[in-house]
Amino acid sequence: MNTFGHIFRLTSFGESHGRGIGGIIDGCPAGLELDISLIQNDLARRKPGQSKITTQRQEPDQVEFLSGVFEGKTQGTPIAFAIWNKDQHSNDYNDLKDVFRPSHADFTYIQKYGTRDYRGGGRSSARETIARVVAGAIAKQILSKVGVTVQAFVSQVGEIKLEKSYTELDLSKTEDNIVRCPDAETAEKMIARIIAAGNDNDTVGGVITGVAKGVPTGWGEPVFNKLHADLGFAMLGINAVKGFEYGSGFEGTKLSGSQHNDVFIQTEKGVRTKTNNSGGIQGGISNGEDIYFNVAFKPIATLLKEQKTVDINSNEITINPKGRHDPCVLPRAVPIVEAMAALVLIDHYLLNKLNSI
Amino acid sequence: MNTFGHIFRLTSFGESHGRGIGGIIDGCPAGLELDISLIQNDLARRKPGQSKITTQRQEPDQVEFLSGVFEGKTQGTPIAFAIWNKDQHSNDYNDLKDVFRPSHADFTYIQKYGTRDYRGGGRSSARETIARVVAGAIAKQILSKVGVTVQAFVSQVGEIKLEKSYTELDLSKTEDNIVRCPDAETAEKMIARIIAAGNDNDTVGGVITGVAKGVPTGWGEPVFNKLHADLGFAMLGINAVKGFEYGSGFEGTKLSGSQHNDVFIQTEKGVRTKTNNSGGIQGGISNGEDIYFNVAFKPIATLLKEQKTVDINSNEITINPKGRHDPCVLPRAVPIVEAMAALVLIDHYLLNKLNSI
Amino acid sequence: MNTFGHIFRLTSFGESHGRGIGGIIDGCPAGLELDISLIQNDLARRKPGQSKITTQRQEPDQVEFLSGVFEGKTQGTPIAFAIWNKDQHSNDYNDLKDVFRPSHADFTYIQKYGTRDYRGGGRSSARETIARVVAGAIAKQILSKVGVTVQAFVSQVGEIKLEKSYTELDLSKTEDNIVRCPDAETAEKMIARIIAAGNDNDTVGGVITGVAKGVPTGWGEPVFNKLHADLGFAMLGINAVKGFEYGSGFEGTKLSGSQHNDVFIQTEKGVRTKTNNSGGIQGGISNGEDIYFNVAFKPIATLLKEQKTVDINSNEITINPKGRHDPCVLPRAVPIVEAMAALVLIDHYLLNKLNSI
Amino acid sequence: MNTFGHIFRLTSFGESHGRGIGGIIDGCPAGLELDISLIQNDLARRKPGQSKITTQRQEPDQVEFLSGVFEGKTQGTPIAFAIWNKDQHSNDYNDLKDVFRPSHADFTYIQKYGTRDYRGGGRSSARETIARVVAGAIAKQILSKVGVTVQAFVSQVGEIKLEKSYTELDLSKTEDNIVRCPDAETAEKMIARIIAAGNDNDTVGGVITGVAKGVPTGWGEPVFNKLHADLGFAMLGINAVKGFEYGSGFEGTKLSGSQHNDVFIQTEKGVRTKTNNSGGIQGGISNGEDIYFNVAFKPIATLLKEQKTVDINSNEITINPKGRHDPCVLPRAVPIVEAMAALVLIDHYLLNKLNSI
Repeated sequence: MNTFGHIFRLTSFGESHGRGIGGIIDGCPAGLELDISLIQNDLARRKPGQSKITTQRQEPDQVEFLSGVFEGKTQGTPIAFAIWNKDQHSNDYNDLKDVFRPSHADFTYIQKYGTRDYRGGGRSSARETIARVVAGAIAKQILSKVGVTVQAFVSQVGEIKLEKSYTELDLSKTEDNIVRCPDAETAEKMIARIIAAGNDNDTVGGVITGVAKGVPTGWGEPVFNKLHADLGFAMLGINAVKGFEYGSGFEGTKLSGSQHNDVFIQTEKGVRTKTNNSGGIQGGISNGEDIYFNVAFKPIATLLKEQKTVDINSNEITINPKGRHDPCVLPRAVPIVEAMAALVLIDHYLLNKLNSI
Repeated sequence: MNTFGHIFRLTSFGESHGRGIGGIIDGCPAGLELDISLIQNDLARRKPGQSKITTQRQEPDQVEFLSGVFEGKTQGTPIAFAIWNKDQHSNDYNDLKDVFRPSHADFTYIQKYGTRDYRGGGRSSARETIARVVAGAIAKQILSKVGVTVQAFVSQVGEIKLEKSYTELDLSKTEDNIVRCPDAETAEKMIARIIAAGNDNDTVGGVITGVAKGVPTGWGEPVFNKLHADLGFAMLGINAVKGFEYGSGFEGTKLSGSQHNDVFIQTEKGVRTKTNNSGGIQGGISNGEDIYFNVAFKPIATLLKEQKTVDINSNEITINPKGRHDPCVLPRAVPIVEAMAALVLIDHYLLNKLNSI
Repeated sequence: MNTFGHIFRLTSFGESHGRGIGGIIDGCPAGLELDISLIQNDLARRKPGQSKITTQRQEPDQVEFLSGVFEGKTQGTPIAFAIWNKDQHSNDYNDLKDVFRPSHADFTYIQKYGTRDYRGGGRSSARETIARVVAGAIAKQILSKVGVTVQAFVSQVGEIKLEKSYTELDLSKTEDNIVRCPDAETAEKMIARIIAAGNDNDTVGGVITGVAKGVPTGWGEPVFNKLHADLGFAMLGINAVKGFEYGSGFEGTKLSGSQHNDVFIQTEKGVRTKTNNSGGIQGGISNGEDIYFNVAFKPIATLLKEQKTVDINSNEITINPKGRHDPCVLPRAVPIVEAMAALVLIDHYLLNKLNSI
Repeated sequence: MNTFGHIFRLTSFGESHGRGIGGIIDGCPAGLELDISLIQNDLARRKPGQSKITTQRQEPDQVEFLSGVFEGKTQGTPIAFAIWNKDQHSNDYNDLKDVFRPSHADFTYIQKYGTRDYRGGGRSSARETIARVVAGAIAKQILSKVGVTVQAFVSQVGEIKLEKSYTELDLSKTEDNIVRCPDAETAEKMIARIIAAGNDNDTVGGVITGVAKGVPTGWGEPVFNKLHADLGFAMLGINAVKGFEYGSGFEGTKLSGSQHNDVFIQTEKGVRTKTNNSGGIQGGISNGEDIYFNVAFKPIATLLKEQKTVDINSNEITINPKGRHDPCVLPRAVPIVEAMAALVLIDHYLLNKLNSI
């Protein structure tokens, strides 16, 4: 169950303190000239140590391709890749070997498998998302050839919320600040909030908004694999995610149908909708409008402060974890959200080739 | 892409005005004595015409099993079933043949397939969920043998919100009123709200909360198929759903980690958590606590009032749909939410058998 | 595990003495005008009672479509269909309820599931193949639009073997005789052999050869899902099949490489091979030549003569089965072989759309 | 389409002259103590340079595990592994860059993908089977814990055929000679035959027989995924394989039913069959008897002699390939056949856990 996707499939592997993180992409079309710098760029956006509001752990996170790329081009064969681990301080975790850290996966892994790699969270570490960022960065390159872009940004940190819609913002400014919020003023507040959490040895959650532009009509499968169901599945599979909504989302439930319906209009560019409460998806299928969605992230469970818990031998204990950790996962999760969205979209782009003879 | 599930798989078929709705369940264990009355009970909770706040369309919605059940028991072979359509007024839809109804799937189906069964929404009709209710009712019967129950209720209609947590409510009272809210007082307000919407030929959205009790530790796959990711996927595949959250959800993003973390404690029943912001799932795997989640439903798109739109020939037109429709999908969607949750849980119950030699 | 295919997927259901046999085809492209008469024609070639060398059981085997077809055209939605059972003499099987018939699936079903529908073999009956013939007949209609034909014929019955290659035969003569061998003289001998077996209350096996013409280059996946691996899988899933070979097959193992290699030549129609020991497939991918293969069928296990066996209570017993049975499965299996080949080919036709951006 | 298996899934990667060959095994149960020496032993049986009748190319073929194994035990997480390529003489292939070698995959890859890694066959090289041998060797370790063994041996080389049944042979002698035939006398003839082919710069084909002992009743899925269908699929996916038969196979087609049927008898060990024409599988499900099958391998296409062919520019040319090649694939393919059989069996062992509640 470590494979994502129907046609363009990523199978990921790796633990945070093992040999490395990587994956195999199967189903990538042949003939794509891979731009490695775009992949490294997304890895750099995800990697630790990138700014004062992320963990100070340093990892080069350089991707190595092991197969499927020849003379710079994809071959239609499986693309294996790895990012070798470098800066692990595995000894930091010896004390936690038998401990169930609160709101971590330590307890559930042991219950499920009877064993676990306790070093740095092992397989449950968000370091696994490196594999997704690599695959997503390749998916983005294909999507860009068909005119589709995927962009995400931080729209909430703790109680600080970006009040503007994405349509009022210049998303190209997202990378202008370290928290990845396209509104400079709100970004400042978010950064201050994260620093405050860090100073308090605490953590803070938030929301990332994703936007896909240029998706043509017809992507998505109408029953179980509705485009937004696959998107939601993708987002909920990211570490720390607690919720997903698209279009009008939870707020839209308060509207009446006559307020919520998106009226069709005829334009020079064909049929469009006047409003976009549908979030670009109707009946599970893209309608040509922007696709947008929100992803809720809980505050990271790893706190550098004392907490009570129990260990594997049923002892009640107090832990005070060390290590280098993020006070807020949001800034580094932006490329992960983009990657997962790109994986869903490339999959439905390919699936949509199958509807006619 | 009409199959749901990894091991216990439902493949659904049918259009709202075709021969019927049905499906094939593949992967159901052998030897289960099927209680048909429990299946019919869930179908009755979903069916039209059940109360004054649902559509007055009448359908018997009686399931017929076509295979896989012999002498009352499942055989390990595929269980095919059908609910034959009876009360279709297909002619009601002749006028809508070439029309793109706002926020419906008419436009996107045509764009995707170049053709569509326009009668009553065809495949995009929520009548398809009958197949899910049947399969879910079978899943529930297996789950009950391993001590797991799944219950859903309406927790919001329009702006009317049930302010109590499910832990403060007696969920057995859910079926005591026609809106399926376990709090009688709130239920009254919700019913009034729906009637008002109906009187206005309008519709209203809301939220359904689902709760699974008795799920042991160890269900769920830790990376892409996290238990909540599969649940979210399941819910987002239901017609009209716009969002999903579990545990602390979107609200939890505002907390700090020290507020949000669920401290482990040792109890007579083993390791438990003091709070349950995790919603019973940690690292994608069940931890033995209650699993709970919210599902957002938009207001139904079908309004019995005038709306502007365009047709297939690029004409701007005004429609004024006829037919018998629900002003609010929520009360009838409660068994659908339960069914989809049961399908996810049975799947992970079975998957979890595969972790050891 | 009752689904066949990757993209064009058939999920089959039904038992020989249950309500009927049927299936759901998911992934059939939209817009195909279904020619029902072609489907019925293949069903007629498979059905019992069609000639003096088949069982005299009578079944109309009329397909009813339950979904996915509207105004004569496929809709891109799941195509459910059923063939309702009519002429079952279920009581013929009461005596066999607790008996393990030699070389039947009675024993293994009980061992696997702890229960079985003993009437007429239940799910293990070759009557299940009706679902495949329907799906295959639809696949053939799509294949014919892209210039591909699939034809099968009986090439061996018992020790009587058609000594000519398919390239020396006029395959259009296959249906000219009741055994479905395109060589009239050999057909006569085969028919006599089957009649002799029937007179002896015995059965006889044989070989069916399949030929696909017009398959362009590029179909097939090079590693596990080689085109011939999927074909072999398909054939070995047919009741009573014991072997599969393609191209030079088992005989080719005796040749040296210099005898066996197919030399490429340049022709007006592009690159071709001088010989075709490769059976039209190289490296798992079609090379544009004819694809041909052989399928071995064992003699049917149901004999109308006394046999020793044991029953479910460990008693050694003697059985003398009644009922109406085929002395030879081969003539009726010809459309089944074609159907399974068509399902594989349509799948790889669709898969091959996914190799380029 | 580079994934094999339903539950225990191998996704393979790599090209013969790329960075290496490897794979990810997903679905391996947790808690297995891996014996690496058993894996290396099977790799040694497959690797080049092992005897005078194989290619003299030297590869250490040492497996490196990249994830999923911690403190010597499987963790239930994906097991990634690689065998790094060492002894490639990629320049040997420069001349063949634009050439379509007869009966190779050069032509079909270009037709399918528009590009190919021409060095040493790239992805189409049998070097890919290393990944299968590693995964199969792990599967064997689990199977041995449930009492199942899988053994293969060479039963035919060219026209030289081992005339004894496997039941008359001591299979433990298979590894006593370099051709891997358990009958010493026949082995000598086979070795001479291979040497003669090599001296002639030619190649020779043959047959490998596989035997699985100890498989309990109940493995296999009765319709499409019959145990022998999955076995056949597995074998036909091995490079150079042209046919598969199990039990009585093609020869059995000549028998009458009364000769072919396997009579059930009651024994101390439960229900057994007197004969085993069924090859241990009835109705697609194992019946407790030995499973045995034959796999046909064509003579290798790479000849070190002059051959006519065409190139990518439509020129008719003559090639005279260099490089170090096997005159006969059979001896090295024995562990590959075992590996693929083990992968099928472990999969059905796990699947069979799902039949009851």
